[in-house]
Amino acid sequence: MIPKDHPGYHSLIRREKIADGAREGIVAMEGVSAHGRGEAFDYLLGEKTTDSAELAERVSAAYLKTARHPVISVNGNTAALASAEIAALQKASGALVEVNLFHRTEVRMRKISALLNNNGVDLLTGVAERLLPLSHDRALCLRDGIFKSDVVLVPLEDGDRCKALREMGKTVITIDLNPLSRTAGAADVTIVDELTRALPNITRFCGEITNTECDELIRSYDNKSILRSALNEMKIRLNSALE
Amino acid sequence: MIPKDHPGYHSLIRREKIADGAREGIVAMEGVSAHGRGEAFDYLLGEKTTDSAELAERVSAAYLKTARHPVISVNGNTAALASAEIAALQKASGALVEVNLFHRTEVRMRKISALLNNNGVDLLTGVAERLLPLSHDRALCLRDGIFKSDVVLVPLEDGDRCKALREMGKTVITIDLNPLSRTAGAADVTIVDELTRALPNITRFCGEITNTECDELIRSYDNKSILRSALNEMKIRLNSALE
Repeated sequence: MIPKDHPGYHSLIRREKIADGAREGIVAMEGVSAHGRGEAFDYLLGEKTTDSAELAERVSAAYLKTARHPVISVNGNTAALASAEIAALQKASGALVEVNLFHRTEVRMRKISALLNNNGVDLLTGVAERLLPLSHDRALCLRDGIFKSDVVLVPLEDGDRCKALREMGKTVITIDLNPLSRTAGAADVTIVDELTRALPNITRFCGEITNTECDELIRSYDNKSILRSALNEMKIRLNSALE
Repeated sequence: MIPKDHPGYHSLIRREKIADGAREGIVAMEGVSAHGRGEAFDYLLGEKTTDSAELAERVSAAYLKTARHPVISVNGNTAALASAEIAALQKASGALVEVNLFHRTEVRMRKISALLNNNGVDLLTGVAERLLPLSHDRALCLRDGIFKSDVVLVPLEDGDRCKALREMGKTVITIDLNPLSRTAGAADVTIVDELTRALPNITRFCGEITNTECDELIRSYDNKSILRSALNEMKIRLNSALE
C-alpha cells in the first residue's frame, strides 16, 4: 500500500496499474517501458497540467464536439490507466470508441474490450480490416470507426500510425508527454500532459465551450507553439534544479 | 529483428533485453518502467557519454582500484543488460560481485545468479543477513560482501539503499541517467550515463590509470559539479530542439 500523502502518490498508483496491466496481459511489455519514458518527461513538467497543455485540451474538445464522426482509439496502456475517464469523455463528446493495438493479439483485444465495457465504455465492434497505409496488422481498423473518422483522438500512439492517419486527411489529436517524439510532431493537436489529467479536462471542456468558441479555438490554434511551450517548461525545471 | 543501421538500434536492443528479462523473471516489472525513465533521460543526453560522465567513470575506476574491499552490487536490470560487462569489470578491478535485489525472491536470486555465472562472473555467495539500516528484506546483504565493503558500485540503485550505504560510511558509486533522482543526489560518485556505455569505460580506466593518478582524481573530484554538467547537457538538447 502506498500512503496517500506520499509526494509521488498518483505517479506510483499509475505505475502499479501499468505493472498489473502487464501481468494481466492488458499492457504490452513495450507499453511498460513507454510508460516509464512518459514518467520521466512528466517529472520534467512538474507533474501538472501546464497552461499550454490546457489550451491543447480545450482545442481537442472543440474538434471532438464539432466533428462529423469523432473516434477515440484506445490501446492497452490507455485502458489500464483510464477506462473510466474514456467512458466519461465518450458521454461528453459523443465519440465512438475503438480498441486499436500496436501489439495486437486476439487475447489482448478481448481482455481490453472487457475492461472498457466494465467501466461503462460503449465499444464499437466489428471485423477489423487492413485499411490504414501501414504494413501487417498495424493496418487493421474498423471501417465504421477509425477509417471513417474525420477527427480521431489517439492517446499514447506510435509515430507511424499517427502519420498514416494524418495522410488519410484526418484531424489527429494525441496525448504524449514527450514533446520531441515523432508522434508529438506528426499530430494536429499534441497534448503534452499525463493521460489521466488530460482526459477529464477534455471532458469538462466539452461541456463548457459553445460552438462559436469551438470555431475560434480551432482557427487560432498553433501546435508548433504548444510544443515549444512544453519544451520551455522542461527547461525551466532543469534551470531551477541548477540554481 | 531490428536492422543494425536503425538510428535507435542500441536503445531498441536494450529495450528488448529488458522485456525478455521481465518475461523470464529476471527483471521486475518495476525495473521495466525504470528502464523507460532512463531511456527518456538518455535521449535528452543525446545517447552518448558526456565529458563529465567520463570523468565520473575515471574517478570510479580510481576508487575501485584503490579500495581495500571493493564490491559491485548487481540487480535484475543490470544482470539483464550487462552480465558480460560486469564480468570484465570484475577482472579489471578485482571487486567482489554480489546480487542484491530490491524486489527479492529466491527464484529471482537463482535466475540472476545463473545468468551472471554463465557470463563469467565469479559470484560471492553465502547466507544473506539483515545488515543494512533498512526495513524488511531490503536490509539483506552478505557479511563478507556489501557489509564489509569500503567502496561499493551500485548501478541503477534505489535512493533509500544508496543513502543507507553512505550512512554506513561507505564510498558509494552509482550509475543513474536521472541527475535529479534521490540516488543521484545521495551517491559520492554519480555516473550520469547509460549502463552498457559506462561499465566498459570504467573497466578500461582500471587498466589505464596509475596509483598516483588515482589519488589525484579522487582528491579533486566534485560530484555536485558533475550533476550540474549533466543537467546542462540536457538543457542544451532542449534548446537545440527549440531553435
